Amino acid sequence: MSAADLRATVAALHAELTRYSLVAWTAGNVSARVPGEELMVIKPSGVSYDELTAANMILCDLDGTVVEGEFAPSSDTAAHAYVYRARPDVGGVVHTHSSYASAWAARGEAIPCVLTAMADEFGGEIPVGPFALIGGDDIGRGIVQTLAGHRSPAVLMRNHGVFTIGRTARAAVKAAVMCEDVARTVHLARQLGEPVPIAPADIDALYDRYQNVYGQRLVAAPRSSPR
Amino acid sequence: MSAADLRATVAALHAELTRYSLVAWTAGNVSARVPGEELMVIKPSGVSYDELTAANMILCDLDGTVVEGEFAPSSDTAAHAYVYRARPDVGGVVHTHSSYASAWAARGEAIPCVLTAMADEFGGEIPVGPFALIGGDDIGRGIVQTLAGHRSPAVLMRNHGVFTIGRTARAAVKAAVMCEDVARTVHLARQLGEPVPIAPADIDALYDRYQNVYGQRLVAAPRSSPR
Amino acid sequence: MSAADLRATVAALHAELTRYSLVAWTAGNVSARVPGEELMVIKPSGVSYDELTAANMILCDLDGTVVEGEFAPSSDTAAHAYVYRARPDVGGVVHTHSSYASAWAARGEAIPCVLTAMADEFGGEIPVGPFALIGGDDIGRGIVQTLAGHRSPAVLMRNHGVFTIGRTARAAVKAAVMCEDVARTVHLARQLGEPVPIAPADIDALYDRYQNVYGQRLVAAPRSSPR
Amino acid sequence: MSAADLRATVAALHAELTRYSLVAWTAGNVSARVPGEELMVIKPSGVSYDELTAANMILCDLDGTVVEGEFAPSSDTAAHAYVYRARPDVGGVVHTHSSYASAWAARGEAIPCVLTAMADEFGGEIPVGPFALIGGDDIGRGIVQTLAGHRSPAVLMRNHGVFTIGRTARAAVKAAVMCEDVARTVHLARQLGEPVPIAPADIDALYDRYQNVYGQRLVAAPRSSPR
Repeated sequence: MSAADLRATVAALHAELTRYSLVAWTAGNVSARVPGEELMVIKPSGVSYDELTAANMILCDLDGTVVEGEFAPSSDTAAHAYVYRARPDVGGVVHTHSSYASAWAARGEAIPCVLTAMADEFGGEIPVGPFALIGGDDIGRGIVQTLAGHRSPAVLMRNHGVFTIGRTARAAVKAAVMCEDVARTVHLARQLGEPVPIAPADIDALYDRYQNVYGQRLVAAPRSSPR
Repeated sequence: MSAADLRATVAALHAELTRYSLVAWTAGNVSARVPGEELMVIKPSGVSYDELTAANMILCDLDGTVVEGEFAPSSDTAAHAYVYRARPDVGGVVHTHSSYASAWAARGEAIPCVLTAMADEFGGEIPVGPFALIGGDDIGRGIVQTLAGHRSPAVLMRNHGVFTIGRTARAAVKAAVMCEDVARTVHLARQLGEPVPIAPADIDALYDRYQNVYGQRLVAAPRSSPR
Repeated sequence: MSAADLRATVAALHAELTRYSLVAWTAGNVSARVPGEELMVIKPSGVSYDELTAANMILCDLDGTVVEGEFAPSSDTAAHAYVYRARPDVGGVVHTHSSYASAWAARGEAIPCVLTAMADEFGGEIPVGPFALIGGDDIGRGIVQTLAGHRSPAVLMRNHGVFTIGRTARAAVKAAVMCEDVARTVHLARQLGEPVPIAPADIDALYDRYQNVYGQRLVAAPRSSPR
Repeated sequence: MSAADLRATVAALHAELTRYSLVAWTAGNVSARVPGEELMVIKPSGVSYDELTAANMILCDLDGTVVEGEFAPSSDTAAHAYVYRARPDVGGVVHTHSSYASAWAARGEAIPCVLTAMADEFGGEIPVGPFALIGGDDIGRGIVQTLAGHRSPAVLMRNHGVFTIGRTARAAVKAAVMCEDVARTVHLARQLGEPVPIAPADIDALYDRYQNVYGQRLVAAPRSSPR
């Protein structure tokens, strides 16, 4: 996909964030790596989702420096860029403050894997990353280090929100949608008692099947085992 | 209804799942039995709800083998097919991970019948079926065995989600919508105390009346008593 | 307003029930008294909100017998009719199973008046009426007897849902919208502690001002004091 | 911006209140100061959000007296006017009864700053103002006195709802949207345990950065420190 096509894709994918109410005002963003180049496309900072177009997306290098674009890039650009530098397998990154997932993040509590849909997509718990201030490499490093120990494409950054990764931007958006969905269901389950655990062997079986069989083609960014 | 008309109906009914926010991304599906034939129409796997059309629905036999269709059928096809084989009275099956119902499923807890609307549609509690892995007959068997002991057209599969049945696909969709609606209301009621029970004789009176009098014609898939 | 105009008004007002997510599938209805006649206009039973038009509304007498209309009237027609017979000041009735209000109803618990918006619209608590089976005068009588002791235009029928009244159908719809809104806010408040009470004299001051000053004209169906 | 342009802006900004479900029926309003004049533009009282246009907005002086407009102004006009008189830096005021924020208000409990997004926008807790009856200067005085001790552009008026301020009406609307968003997330976090606190120095760092760096230009109404 060319950088031009990718601009249109990234702009359009933000509509999934609003469709699923994952974002309020301008607080959430999608980026995509330009395949084969040291470049990424990302949302401009503080621009309404209604006003996003291919033309106002920002093209940055992987240090977060603007290469093309009239606006300042997302204030989360440094975190996205860090992930692309550290993880060559990642083609898309999404950030949201979706309510239920951010509530787990505010308590610094991982979401336990008690749903088959969670085993499918996340292969286990959705882990919690460190508290980190915006502006340098701390958020990016926290994302990468936390995800390195898990199959989950989503991480809950403490007191902050969600970052997800994917082989494509679309896969990362899917992970953000599913992260909020399971964060809500497990929250609701916990409100009235304790969810029944799923045996680790069953989680493995579900994850392996989903990553290899589901859909018309692979749609997520799986790695076959935690590293 | 011909298989061609049924394709259009099944494609269109998925819009009710998104209208009531019962599904995230592609996680939910509707199927219908082709009347008088050993065939069913079902959603393709991993395709967005926005992109569903009569043309891309999949026609399968009741072993789940594709008879007509360009795409792979829903990964839940085996479960739908099992239900049609075991229950000749069933013309439609729906599967969702709707949030409140799935929260009850995650705790493995049946939803008690404490609302008149629940007595009307479900004739008692919404029961919990077993934990079962996807891929064989275990989910289908769990659905059929659990529903055999209840008037409810909905079952909460443990740690998983909801399956509903109906005399038609539309009736099964209605049951899925009402299942989430009562799952939410009873959840909310329980958060601040205990709901008042409804006497079993009143539940019977409500169920019998609703199944025989409500609406312009029968719209659900009733059986007059549990078996 | 003629019966013809009223049909269009009643059909259109159902869109407010779906806009505020007060109803699932076909479970909720609006009616209006034909001014100066022993007649009412009400929703047909079991018809989708998308399909409501002035033409398919049902005209009934105040015993609930159909005078004009191709379809069966709402299964709640007897309750609406009872209210119009007993309360000549009422011009509109609304029934919903909205989630938060019905959760209070499932516990048989009145909603305490701890919000200024609730004092404005309801003049005090939203009371709970008796459990009653559908089909005769029991629901209607329960509504009328319960509201007789309160300024509230809304009553929570135990284990069932909400009925609201108004001088017009629009006022009754407004009361149904506000009932769910305050049911939700007070529910949320109670989840994490106890709301601060509002002094009865302040509730009276708020109610009197709102019923006499708010808006461009009177929009609710006030009575100046409980009877 | 002329008063004519401001009418269109204020009318249009109400669509953000409905988009984010901050308001039910007609219970919420936006106003803007006419730059350089002792005038404000505000919503008419009791008019549906669907029917708001530049033409039916009301122009008032800063005592709340109508200067131009066919309708009565919002019943909250006195509170808006008080804020403009007391705070020359304020160009926009918003009032809502949004559910989660109003639940905190009903308990008379400030929202603790446990989210980075909350540090960004509010610079600390969202405080609680006094209980005050509508109609005189009590609400306006309560807003101004409470906000004087905080960096937050939002205040929870006890048993009532939210008032927000901004350098522009758009900034005040943003504050109202973000107030409900963080009220919900912190509520959810608290339901299942205790959120992790954020160190005061980190809150300061986040606030300073956001107010000075975020977006294409300053979009909120910051004051660099509490007073």
